[in-house]
Amino acid sequence: MTPFIETTLIAAREIADVLQYGWRSEFAEHGDVGAGGDRTAGIDTLAERIYIEKLSGFGKIDSEEAGIVGEGEATIVIDPIDGSDNAISGLPYFGSSIALERRGRVEEAVVVNLANGDCFYKTDAELMHGKIGSERFEPVVRRGHTTVGIFEKAYANPEFAMALLKRKQKFRSPGAVALSLAYAHYVSFVIFAGPRRRYDFAAALWMCEGLEMIVEDELLIVAKDRDTASNLHRLAQGEKD
Amino acid sequence: MTPFIETTLIAAREIADVLQYGWRSEFAEHGDVGAGGDRTAGIDTLAERIYIEKLSGFGKIDSEEAGIVGEGEATIVIDPIDGSDNAISGLPYFGSSIALERRGRVEEAVVVNLANGDCFYKTDAELMHGKIGSERFEPVVRRGHTTVGIFEKAYANPEFAMALLKRKQKFRSPGAVALSLAYAHYVSFVIFAGPRRRYDFAAALWMCEGLEMIVEDELLIVAKDRDTASNLHRLAQGEKD
Repeated sequence: MTPFIETTLIAAREIADVLQYGWRSEFAEHGDVGAGGDRTAGIDTLAERIYIEKLSGFGKIDSEEAGIVGEGEATIVIDPIDGSDNAISGLPYFGSSIALERRGRVEEAVVVNLANGDCFYKTDAELMHGKIGSERFEPVVRRGHTTVGIFEKAYANPEFAMALLKRKQKFRSPGAVALSLAYAHYVSFVIFAGPRRRYDFAAALWMCEGLEMIVEDELLIVAKDRDTASNLHRLAQGEKD
Repeated sequence: MTPFIETTLIAAREIADVLQYGWRSEFAEHGDVGAGGDRTAGIDTLAERIYIEKLSGFGKIDSEEAGIVGEGEATIVIDPIDGSDNAISGLPYFGSSIALERRGRVEEAVVVNLANGDCFYKTDAELMHGKIGSERFEPVVRRGHTTVGIFEKAYANPEFAMALLKRKQKFRSPGAVALSLAYAHYVSFVIFAGPRRRYDFAAALWMCEGLEMIVEDELLIVAKDRDTASNLHRLAQGEKD
């Protein structure tokens, strides 16, 4: 584990501890519109403050809420709370996404599930999965026998969603896309419809390296094999086969 | 906490520990069709075995997988794994639902989120929320300021889903209905479309006591206030307002 990843996990643990300790109503306070276009919430600001404090020694920070903060050769792209609406609403599926970029290329990435402590990190050498506060990290292994995929923002492409359902292909829409992409090596597939913001995708999309990906302007398909990806793509295009 | 609830939480902890220790491929093995109509999976059988072993002293067990087991005045209605597809597919939103009934009425109920340790239990006296293995349980408090609801099996009623989206009402479909109902005091609303099986609903629906509920054959709406529930119901009926 690199110093950057280790420090990121320490920050994530601090945030998880604050949230675990008990929900406070100010976490749900909405403020201004952040750099990513979302309204910032109390919980986002809290998490962002902790990441900036801990990570600014590694480079300048480009965060969904605050925009660019600090200086440095590297850029650290952060979505402090991926799935803010879930966090505010008490639905346990939300996390953080952190990517360290140099010369426009991601070199280290972390995605943390703040609702259950799952951590994923990637370097050029490895993609690992463990728990916040645990020493034990293991390589991510693709899971077979899976029965459901994830379709985030299915409502942005309802025809595609209906086409999947007609095929009896079960999917979920849990509402935190970086997190969902971090689970892409496990679930049957991950689909995202709609425009993509770098805060949500920088870390997690790099974690999908080695999986089959179809990347279009308003559609992203990730699957474990080429057949699944291209079948999904055909359905997305409304083609019959 | 009653002896039944305490014992149920000990069983749930044992199951959570087995799953935490590491995913094994036999968890995903599909067997016969269970009493609830679903195909039983290895993980369901494993969890059911542990609940039967620990809880059979409290009454006869009516489980989704095994049907009726044992004898006793009370009936313990169990869905050992709510959200099996998620569990098998590595999506962290699945749990257990356990209800103790006497004379056809639920008297004690437990819903556990096995993916993050959240536990809810209810008696006639209280509805409490805590974590597996923790001593600290606190009364469930309705959460304000929420921004998303849950719509399970939204695909069974796509017109309703589209009507919500046109109103910019965000919802998630995480795929474990007992768990989703256990969070009903937090999220904006919970909707379930389709036929209901007692294994999934016995415990969690009782936990929604005090919330506004609209219960029809193939539609369940739960919300924190009457206006929200009846507005949702109007949208479900396709009425314009």
